[in-house]
Amino acid sequence: MSNLLIRNVRPNGGAPTDILIRDGKIEAIGQNLQAEGVTVEDGLGHVAIPGLVEAHTHLDKSVWGMPWHENAKVATLRERIDFEREKRLEIGIDPHRQSMRQAIQLAANGASHIRSHVDIDTTHGLALMEGIIETRAALDGVIDIEIVAFPQSGLVTRRGTVELLDQALSNGAEVLGGIDPCGIDRDPKGHLDAVFGLAEKHGKPIDIHLHEAGELGAFSMEMMFERIRALGMHGKVAISHAFALGAPDYLRVAGLIEQIAELDVRIVTTGSPSSTVPSIMRLKDAGVKVAAGCDGIRDTWGPWGQPDMMDRARILGMKNGLRRDVDLEHALHVCSTGGADVMDIAGYGLDVGCNADFTLLVGETLAHAVVEVAPRPLVVKRGRVIARNGVAEVAIP
Amino acid sequence: MSNLLIRNVRPNGGAPTDILIRDGKIEAIGQNLQAEGVTVEDGLGHVAIPGLVEAHTHLDKSVWGMPWHENAKVATLRERIDFEREKRLEIGIDPHRQSMRQAIQLAANGASHIRSHVDIDTTHGLALMEGIIETRAALDGVIDIEIVAFPQSGLVTRRGTVELLDQALSNGAEVLGGIDPCGIDRDPKGHLDAVFGLAEKHGKPIDIHLHEAGELGAFSMEMMFERIRALGMHGKVAISHAFALGAPDYLRVAGLIEQIAELDVRIVTTGSPSSTVPSIMRLKDAGVKVAAGCDGIRDTWGPWGQPDMMDRARILGMKNGLRRDVDLEHALHVCSTGGADVMDIAGYGLDVGCNADFTLLVGETLAHAVVEVAPRPLVVKRGRVIARNGVAEVAIP
Ligand SMILES: [Zn+2]
Ligand SMILES: [Zn+2]
Repeated sequence: MSNLLIRNVRPNGGAPTDILIRDGKIEAIGQNLQAEGVTVEDGLGHVAIPGLVEAHTHLDKSVWGMPWHENAKVATLRERIDFEREKRLEIGIDPHRQSMRQAIQLAANGASHIRSHVDIDTTHGLALMEGIIETRAALDGVIDIEIVAFPQSGLVTRRGTVELLDQALSNGAEVLGGIDPCGIDRDPKGHLDAVFGLAEKHGKPIDIHLHEAGELGAFSMEMMFERIRALGMHGKVAISHAFALGAPDYLRVAGLIEQIAELDVRIVTTGSPSSTVPSIMRLKDAGVKVAAGCDGIRDTWGPWGQPDMMDRARILGMKNGLRRDVDLEHALHVCSTGGADVMDIAGYGLDVGCNADFTLLVGETLAHAVVEVAPRPLVVKRGRVIARNGVAEVAIP
Repeated sequence: MSNLLIRNVRPNGGAPTDILIRDGKIEAIGQNLQAEGVTVEDGLGHVAIPGLVEAHTHLDKSVWGMPWHENAKVATLRERIDFEREKRLEIGIDPHRQSMRQAIQLAANGASHIRSHVDIDTTHGLALMEGIIETRAALDGVIDIEIVAFPQSGLVTRRGTVELLDQALSNGAEVLGGIDPCGIDRDPKGHLDAVFGLAEKHGKPIDIHLHEAGELGAFSMEMMFERIRALGMHGKVAISHAFALGAPDYLRVAGLIEQIAELDVRIVTTGSPSSTVPSIMRLKDAGVKVAAGCDGIRDTWGPWGQPDMMDRARILGMKNGLRRDVDLEHALHVCSTGGADVMDIAGYGLDVGCNADFTLLVGETLAHAVVEVAPRPLVVKRGRVIARNGVAEVAIP
C-alpha cells in the first residue's frame, strides 16, 4: 500500500511539481518524477499543504448528522456541563458513532491529525473515551487521533475523578486535561495540584481549558507557570482558549506572554468571535507555538461550527483582523504546522522523508486558498487518497 | 410571466403548505392549492423565508471572479481609501461587471434586495454609480438594488464632492451616504451639515458609515441626533457599523440606544468579528430596527466575505454569542425582515398580497437552517425561479 505519484501540485502555492510517495512517506519532490508500478494522480495545479491539524475539539459531544438539537434555555457554564453529562446518552449522542462522523468529515476537509478532549467523569467513567478509542482504531490510516482525558465536570469537587483520570492515562489518553481552576472546581490550588501531580506521575503533557478572562485567567495562568517551573515541565503544557490573553491591558498581557514564551507553554486558540482571544500575530512575534481548533461542533453547548479547519482558519483570520496575504498565510500555518508544533507530531511536513499526509487546496496562492470556500480537491493520508472533492472515501456511519 | 405554484414548502419552518403566485405576487398560501395553466415546482419540504436583504455592501468594489488581489501592505484607513480611488480602474475593477457578479451571486444565495453604497468622488464623478445603474437595469426582476451615494474619500475636504452628491441624488441614488465625520473629513460639523443639508434638499434618507469607536463614535452619533431632532428626520437616518454601540460601558451605550429608539434611527451591522459591534439582542429589546450586510466582499480593503447573507447570519450569530434557537431566528430576522424594515421595502413578506420574493433553505427548523452550510434549493423573485441549488439561472459575466 501507500505508493503514489501525484503530478502537478504547487507545494505551499509555489511552482508546480510532482510528489512521489513510497510506503506512506514522501520519497521525492521534483518535476517529471518517474516511478514504475505506482498509481498516478493528477493534482491539476492545486496548492498542496501538509495536513491540517484540528488541535482542539470534542469528538464525544457532537450531534452532527443527528436530528436537530433545539437549544431552548439560557444557561450558565455549570448548567451546560451538568445538562450534557446527564442527558447525552438519553439524547443519543453515541461517542463512537458521533466521533466517526466528525473525524471522517475533518479528514475529508484535509485534516491529518486531531487532538480531542474527551469527558472523563463519575457518571460515565471511561466509557466515552472507549468510544473514541474504537474510532481511533477504525480510522487508522485515515486520520490520527490524540486523546486528552478531560475532567469537564470538575476534578477535586467530584470524588473519584482523579482515579478515573489516572486510569485514562494508563489506558489510551496521551494528554491530561483540566478546566478553569477557579471557575469550575472553585479551588485553583486543588485543581492544579491534582492535574500537575497526575501528569508528572504518568510523564504526560497537559492541555488545560482556560475560559477565565481578564485578571482571573491571568491568576490561573500564573499558578500554572509556578508549577511548570517547580516541576521543570517546560514544553509540556498547553493552554486552550487563553481568553485572558485577549484582555485590553497591553502591558499586563505582555508579562504573561513573556512567561509563556520562556516556559514554552503552547497556546491553542479557537478565535472565538464572541470572546477576547489571544492575538496570533503577537504570539508569533513572541515565538510562542500556537495551534487552532474548532472546539465543539454543533453540540448541546451551542449550534455553531463546521468540522473543517479551513473554515476555522477564516474565523481565526477575521477575528484577528488580518488582511495582508502574509498574515493570512500565518492563520493557515496556525491551523496546520502550528498544530504539529503544539502537539509535537513526529514526521509532519511537506518535505522529503515526512509522512505523506497532505491536502490540496483551491486557490491561486496560499492566501487566496484561505478565503476561497471550496471543497478540498484531494486529501492524502500516509500516501493513500482518503477524500476527493470534499467526499470521504471512507463510509460514514 | 410570474405565475407559479410551489408545493410542499414550510414557511418559517412551520407546517408544509403550498404557495400560489399570480403576476409576481403571493395570491394564496394553503394546502393542496389548485391552479390551471401554472408552472408547478416541488419545494421538497424545505423551509421558506422571505428574500434575504443585503443592507450594506459595496457593489462597485469587489474583485470577486477576478485574479487574486494581493494585499501586501499595512495601511491606514486613509491610505486604503486613497489606494482604492487611484488604482481601482488600473486593477480592472469595472463597476458594472463586478457588481453583476456580486449581485447575481447574492441573488443565487437567496437575497431579494441590496442596499449598495457606491463611491462618489472627484476622481470618478458619477461613473462608478453609472456602472451600478446599468447592473440594476440588467437585473430587473432578479434582484432589487438601492444605491447610496457614498462620499468615501471625504466630502468637505474634497471640493466638488457636494455638487457630485447633489447630482447623484438627482440621477438615481435613493439614499445619501456619509462616513466618519471626525475620522475622515476631520470636520464633524462641516461633514454632517453638508450631509443633512443635501438629504433635506432632496427629501431622501441618510445612511452613514460610522466606524468611529467609543467616545468618538458616541460624539458623532450625538451630533447626528441633534440634526435629526432639528430637521424632524425621525425614521430617515441609518447608521452603518455603529461600533460605538459595542463599547464596554453599558450605561453610556444605554443612553445612546435610548435616543436611537426615540428618533427611529436604524442600525445596520456587519457583526465584524474584529470590532466592537452593537448587540442585536439589546437593540431588539429596545425596539430598534436592525439590518445586516456583508460590507465589502474581497476587495482592495481586505480579502474576507462571501456574497451570501446566510454566511453573514452565521458571522453575526457567532459574534453576538447566540446559542438559543429563538436567538438564531433573530439573527436570520435581521438578515431578512430587519433589512426590509430598515430600507422601508414595500410589499415585503411571505404573506398573501406580498411580492413573491422568497428563498428556500435547508434545515429542519429556522435555527437549523441558520447553521447548516448548504446551497439554497430554490430562489424565487417576483414569482420567477432565479436560482436552483445555489446556481443562478442568469448568466454571470
Ligand atoms: Zn473545548
Ligand atoms: Zn461599508
